[in-house]
Amino acid sequence: MCRWLAYSGAPVLLDELLYKPTHSLIDQSRHARLGVETTNGDGFGVGWYTGSEVPGIFHGIGPAWGDRNLQNLSAHISSPLFFAHIRASTGTAVQETNCHPFRYGRWLWMHNGSIAQFHRVKRDLMLAVDPDLFPAIEGSTDSELMFFLALTFGLREDPPAAVARMAGLVEATAQRYGIDDALQMTVATTDGVRVWSFRYSTERRSRSLFYSQDVRALRDLYPDNPLVRLASDEARLIVSEPLGDLQDAWIEVPESTYGIIQEGDDVMRRFEPIPPT
Amino acid sequence: MCRWLAYSGAPVLLDELLYKPTHSLIDQSRHARLGVETTNGDGFGVGWYTGSEVPGIFHGIGPAWGDRNLQNLSAHISSPLFFAHIRASTGTAVQETNCHPFRYGRWLWMHNGSIAQFHRVKRDLMLAVDPDLFPAIEGSTDSELMFFLALTFGLREDPPAAVARMAGLVEATAQRYGIDDALQMTVATTDGVRVWSFRYSTERRSRSLFYSQDVRALRDLYPDNPLVRLASDEARLIVSEPLGDLQDAWIEVPESTYGIIQEGDDVMRRFEPIPPT
Amino acid sequence: MCRWLAYSGAPVLLDELLYKPTHSLIDQSRHARLGVETTNGDGFGVGWYTGSEVPGIFHGIGPAWGDRNLQNLSAHISSPLFFAHIRASTGTAVQETNCHPFRYGRWLWMHNGSIAQFHRVKRDLMLAVDPDLFPAIEGSTDSELMFFLALTFGLREDPPAAVARMAGLVEATAQRYGIDDALQMTVATTDGVRVWSFRYSTERRSRSLFYSQDVRALRDLYPDNPLVRLASDEARLIVSEPLGDLQDAWIEVPESTYGIIQEGDDVMRRFEPIPPT
Amino acid sequence: MCRWLAYSGAPVLLDELLYKPTHSLIDQSRHARLGVETTNGDGFGVGWYTGSEVPGIFHGIGPAWGDRNLQNLSAHISSPLFFAHIRASTGTAVQETNCHPFRYGRWLWMHNGSIAQFHRVKRDLMLAVDPDLFPAIEGSTDSELMFFLALTFGLREDPPAAVARMAGLVEATAQRYGIDDALQMTVATTDGVRVWSFRYSTERRSRSLFYSQDVRALRDLYPDNPLVRLASDEARLIVSEPLGDLQDAWIEVPESTYGIIQEGDDVMRRFEPIPPT
Repeated sequence: MCRWLAYSGAPVLLDELLYKPTHSLIDQSRHARLGVETTNGDGFGVGWYTGSEVPGIFHGIGPAWGDRNLQNLSAHISSPLFFAHIRASTGTAVQETNCHPFRYGRWLWMHNGSIAQFHRVKRDLMLAVDPDLFPAIEGSTDSELMFFLALTFGLREDPPAAVARMAGLVEATAQRYGIDDALQMTVATTDGVRVWSFRYSTERRSRSLFYSQDVRALRDLYPDNPLVRLASDEARLIVSEPLGDLQDAWIEVPESTYGIIQEGDDVMRRFEPIPPT
Repeated sequence: MCRWLAYSGAPVLLDELLYKPTHSLIDQSRHARLGVETTNGDGFGVGWYTGSEVPGIFHGIGPAWGDRNLQNLSAHISSPLFFAHIRASTGTAVQETNCHPFRYGRWLWMHNGSIAQFHRVKRDLMLAVDPDLFPAIEGSTDSELMFFLALTFGLREDPPAAVARMAGLVEATAQRYGIDDALQMTVATTDGVRVWSFRYSTERRSRSLFYSQDVRALRDLYPDNPLVRLASDEARLIVSEPLGDLQDAWIEVPESTYGIIQEGDDVMRRFEPIPPT
Repeated sequence: MCRWLAYSGAPVLLDELLYKPTHSLIDQSRHARLGVETTNGDGFGVGWYTGSEVPGIFHGIGPAWGDRNLQNLSAHISSPLFFAHIRASTGTAVQETNCHPFRYGRWLWMHNGSIAQFHRVKRDLMLAVDPDLFPAIEGSTDSELMFFLALTFGLREDPPAAVARMAGLVEATAQRYGIDDALQMTVATTDGVRVWSFRYSTERRSRSLFYSQDVRALRDLYPDNPLVRLASDEARLIVSEPLGDLQDAWIEVPESTYGIIQEGDDVMRRFEPIPPT
Repeated sequence: MCRWLAYSGAPVLLDELLYKPTHSLIDQSRHARLGVETTNGDGFGVGWYTGSEVPGIFHGIGPAWGDRNLQNLSAHISSPLFFAHIRASTGTAVQETNCHPFRYGRWLWMHNGSIAQFHRVKRDLMLAVDPDLFPAIEGSTDSELMFFLALTFGLREDPPAAVARMAGLVEATAQRYGIDDALQMTVATTDGVRVWSFRYSTERRSRSLFYSQDVRALRDLYPDNPLVRLASDEARLIVSEPLGDLQDAWIEVPESTYGIIQEGDDVMRRFEPIPPT
């Protein structure tokens, strides 16, 4: 199990969201509440957009809670769109190339969950990756492979369809090997402009996922809360588990759903895997 | 808070005691039960004696639970006397020079606890270290400084007296600064032949410490238990919290007590700090 | 031996100076030319100023040449004033708390050189550190101790005098122990506005140090050079050894000299240690 | 470029061979002489056999020259057969799963060299790996993939034939992509009893490889040399470049040759890739 956070809104210093809230993501690296595993100490990562084309990324292999570089960088990097992830390995090695968010060109990807019995299906899934993309795979996780499958299936053109085809392939492959409950995922991906997030599992009991309530509504409820006061009108957070201490600030993403955070109205739709033809 | 384990007995592979028992020390790195902090993920260390004069040590800065080198080494290093320690930093940096056990010549030292408001008394305590020993201090922890104070006060000649004088100096110094509850410690130290362990705190509410029941007695109670079967007659373990699942296998070290594991009869005596004169 | 670089001028992405020049600082981590040791692979660091009060720092314990985080961060962090350092340890541990630049409040400090027989004089020098500053020492290097001595002697008020008193104390202490050639240093320090650099050694054979020629002069000589074109009029670099391939771009700092980079005219003056009274 | 060392003979402490000789392997991590790259600072590893079935391995991602754990372990681990390797990455990530020696069951494998334009042929080569072995690939290097191809082709039954088929497949694959000079390798592999070493490159200009002269002959020549005195009669070393300072101690392995170190007479034969049928 892992925990992650995606932010979009007016530029903020990363530490405003990673460190300062009660039950912050960094706290969750030591004491998560909603999950199989309370400790997420097997590495971490942040990815952020500034002016340049390609997002910055910073990965560490120690626990996030004690990483001084992360703390320093978070206090000096400001961004209007960033991802943060803390990892609990399900068996693959603790190394930077296995840390989320993964990056390809302008795109970032992060994941909480797993492909069941990954070692049995890994080879078949790797063969499905576009040969031109194949050399860019650097780590050994199911999460990164899911990213490259989604890229293969057109993530850069139509993210919901690409992720649906990826999920469909994983399920079909697992079925061929007689593996139940093939896929468990909450995923976020972005091109630096829009953020797509997905909550899905084959058994329809997916890991938790929440998005933040409209800031204007929160201002009425909590005029004095520092986080709320800080936030811009269009600020949006998507998180594995709620930060802060505001009861009404978080809305659970329904089972088998994806959402898009974008200029104009956000969108939330039903997610359904597309089996390979 | 940290957790530690000291073993003396017939030579065993380290992993027999570090990995194989239920609720092993490695498990405790993620989920300790008896302590302020359940996660001990800020580095680890083992120290062991083989034929050579100076004990071997291996330190790592990541969590013990995921360290493949520790796992590999533990499966290939066999020793009749070894220390193992998992660290939860109380603020000082996560780096190898802050990992226990600390070594000086033939001696090893490891500690669970802390000196209250260490930053305020650190300078005074450092000045009390023998100038000839001073350059050998490599890290920044209270634990290592306690070791060097004990060495200054004659650890190599009379360990209980040296540790008592160290504790007395820490308490006297804290008192001068108006600091309450100066010292909290469970300590183990060894010269490769005998093992001394100490349970003490200024407020007389010391961290937990246990030693293993006589193996012969355990054999009657649990003839089929693999750990008990494996153990030699003279095998002794001292641990921050019990391993395994045997109710009668562990005896709590009383408050303000030290023990000696040695050839012939083991010893347990009252521990009392010796104030500086 | 280490290598370092200090930049002041219009904001630039760090990688413009750390990676892109021929014989860049990152190249020097593997193949330095002017020094006792050609490999500087024992950690690295950057410190940079943005809007916030305290500069950002990023330290790594591996070689700079292979560090992907450094490469990523350098391509996304832009600053008008930054320090970069690559380390070749002279014996002390390779750990983040021993990486330059060191930071205290608004101040940064980095060093190339050493205190002769540091282990013999370390204790005396540590005693000379202001007790209020003492707890902020985190590592074990001579370089960091020199910083805290300079802070003790008024670095924040009068840097040249404070560094002169630090050097004087080191030399006086060494003399007391019968140690020759006490100090070897090229040092840079900054408060985020001005940059002071020092070249000095007791034996008057100091490590190399260079500052960049006036950019306007260089433009006449090398109108097509990308580094020169990029540079703002007031851009200044101070480096352990020249970057790039322009013969006329660098001026050697004379022996026993310090310089100040500041708004208005830069300054270069004779440096002489001030012995303790 | 990397450097490696394989030892077989009477049990010795690892540090006798890794640290004590002049121009030792650890020295070569900073200053190799015979190679494209003089610095081998991108991780290291040792693998050794003791009583247990599976060899021990220890991998580190920093430079070998500064690693205190390696130094400590080398002074406490004694073995009759061990491999040691220092790495200079040719582009793949610096992480433990990319460190040599690689292990599979009882087998160890280490490599100096590279597959030309590896990113272009990697996918095809991975598809050739036995699907049952595929999940055990953990890193991203050409070296590890060569190991798994050799395992696929029967390394455990007939090492020279398996390595020849691996080399043949690499060359045939490269040819299909129009890549010249496909393979450059010096490889050592062992099952804990015998050691096979290979020197080969498609262009027939292979990286250097040497084996040690018969110890009895050396004793006549250098009766006082400590390394020679220490060595047992059957001691054999295979190294990327000579250790120590004895002119007559080393014999170059000829181009396109493999050797076997074993009980009874050692063997040296011509090596020729076997193209896929």
